[in-house]
Amino acid sequence: MIKERRDKRILLAHGSGGKLSYELIEEVFAPYFENPILNQFNDQAILPIEGIDLAFSTDTYVVSPIFFPGGDIGKLAICGTVNDLAMGGAIPLYLSVGFILEEGFPVGDLKKILRSMAEAAKEAKVTIVTGDTKVVNKGSADGIFINTTGIGVRKKGIDIGGDKARVGDKVIVSGFIGDHGMAILLMREGLEFQGEVKSDCAPLNRLVSQMLDTSSNIHVLRDPTRGGVATVLNEIALRSLVGIRLEEEKIPVREEVRAACEILGLDPLYLANEGKLLAIVGKEDAEKILETIKNNPYGKNAEIIGEVVEDYPRKVFMKTRIGGTRLVDMLVGEQLPRIC
Amino acid sequence: MIKERRDKRILLAHGSGGKLSYELIEEVFAPYFENPILNQFNDQAILPIEGIDLAFSTDTYVVSPIFFPGGDIGKLAICGTVNDLAMGGAIPLYLSVGFILEEGFPVGDLKKILRSMAEAAKEAKVTIVTGDTKVVNKGSADGIFINTTGIGVRKKGIDIGGDKARVGDKVIVSGFIGDHGMAILLMREGLEFQGEVKSDCAPLNRLVSQMLDTSSNIHVLRDPTRGGVATVLNEIALRSLVGIRLEEEKIPVREEVRAACEILGLDPLYLANEGKLLAIVGKEDAEKILETIKNNPYGKNAEIIGEVVEDYPRKVFMKTRIGGTRLVDMLVGEQLPRIC
Repeated sequence: MIKERRDKRILLAHGSGGKLSYELIEEVFAPYFENPILNQFNDQAILPIEGIDLAFSTDTYVVSPIFFPGGDIGKLAICGTVNDLAMGGAIPLYLSVGFILEEGFPVGDLKKILRSMAEAAKEAKVTIVTGDTKVVNKGSADGIFINTTGIGVRKKGIDIGGDKARVGDKVIVSGFIGDHGMAILLMREGLEFQGEVKSDCAPLNRLVSQMLDTSSNIHVLRDPTRGGVATVLNEIALRSLVGIRLEEEKIPVREEVRAACEILGLDPLYLANEGKLLAIVGKEDAEKILETIKNNPYGKNAEIIGEVVEDYPRKVFMKTRIGGTRLVDMLVGEQLPRIC
Repeated sequence: MIKERRDKRILLAHGSGGKLSYELIEEVFAPYFENPILNQFNDQAILPIEGIDLAFSTDTYVVSPIFFPGGDIGKLAICGTVNDLAMGGAIPLYLSVGFILEEGFPVGDLKKILRSMAEAAKEAKVTIVTGDTKVVNKGSADGIFINTTGIGVRKKGIDIGGDKARVGDKVIVSGFIGDHGMAILLMREGLEFQGEVKSDCAPLNRLVSQMLDTSSNIHVLRDPTRGGVATVLNEIALRSLVGIRLEEEKIPVREEVRAACEILGLDPLYLANEGKLLAIVGKEDAEKILETIKNNPYGKNAEIIGEVVEDYPRKVFMKTRIGGTRLVDMLVGEQLPRIC
């Protein structure tokens, strides 16, 4: 038993965002860091500081390749953290940036990445206020890794979280799923039709503000990044103690992504997204919120894709195109490492 | 000219904290990220949010080896960011943690690091509220890198910054310099007397609170990490447009560190510290502040080591033991990569 433990090593799948990531957090991290805020397991912490609800979120970006159709590691590092803050119902304000550079990394590439970061920050209306750069010897890192950590402010009265899905709620996705994961995969594998699929990488904070202005009946917001729509919905089902039923034919998937998935034997439900959100909302307001999303450039192809139900609590299941029902599990193993 | 630029690559010395780091920030980063807060170049940003002065600071830790006498990368990651917040005169409250793990990293080592982090956080009275873990393929990182980003609150009226040194001020260091840098160096080189020098890695926020309670006449606070006392004082001299005169015989250096420096041809003024601070304070209160520092367990060996002068503006110079005067430049090149 002791030997087994001593030999235990980190696997790529521990970083997948799926089942093994969940276990790593629960079994290795949680015992040391337990506290009421961290234990909420949202993508952002909400901190009460002198009467303000501050949102605080961190992410490290290790995507490979660093330049891809639709973006690069810099754009991703800004949008990803902005979106994590927005998913808490907060307005993102400030970011810190921490770089790890490998000795020999081309300064020209760094400048391209910085330009992307500056552009994305401008669009998202966030300011980069502090930073740090470390350089490691050649071979000790793969080019460039970027951490961004963000601060936002959440208006009083907003109460959004992964444990707040209620039976009867509708599940909305803001557009085509799987674009980011497929763009990275095709590029990494050097596959022919790569240029046709672009990452959806985008800041969603404006969209979220518009949604919050439309309705106070928004219960859960999440961006389905690592592990995809399937994994994120499973986490919500687990934490809200509800079932989630999807309708396959309602889920928007771009034709090129669907075709590539078929050829490669992948399921778009597990592919990462970097410019999409899932919203679980009170059914009375679902159509109104959908309308608001569709009016935003990043939400044109939004759909109501399912609902929260009593059946199969803590599970996600799907009515398939041909009328059957299948369980949709969390991602197991790593579908694609270094996707973000 | 264009060719020269295209070929420009990141050097280890760009991460040294010395002259090339300064140039990297000024020439490569600043043009993209310029804004009034970032341009203050302090180790923390002070953000006005709804009437509160929030301190915000980030650091990524890539120290090698990850375990060393007196600490490990986990303890360092907590203390380093806590100290950066404290040096802004803020009370550190919350931290985020972002891990990059190399595939195959032993879970047992990870747990040791997490335990150190939990202990250091407890001592510093900060709470880890949000986190992220990425795993990269074997060979794409060196074991473990950790980013911590912190939030603190600064009381109204506190006005501390690298540009606030005034002629006549005294320069205080809170104890023996160079312990961290020398501990890492000796261990890395496998030198005999390694066990005798321990890293000084420690959280200094309590010490800073006590100093602020003692006097409102504290103008600059900095922890002399990468680049050491010499580099940090040069930065202050540059930003405050003053000269700084040190007295060599007043600078506290542990006997073992002094001996090792002589053998290795190093200068303790350039060695990194992780549990020391430099304070530049009004001369009227200097003795009182020194007394307060000496009463804290992390400040027992504090000394007044110099003063701020009109001569040699933007330069640091030192009255040597034998009565001469020499200029003390910023660190040039990398004395020791991956020191933190």
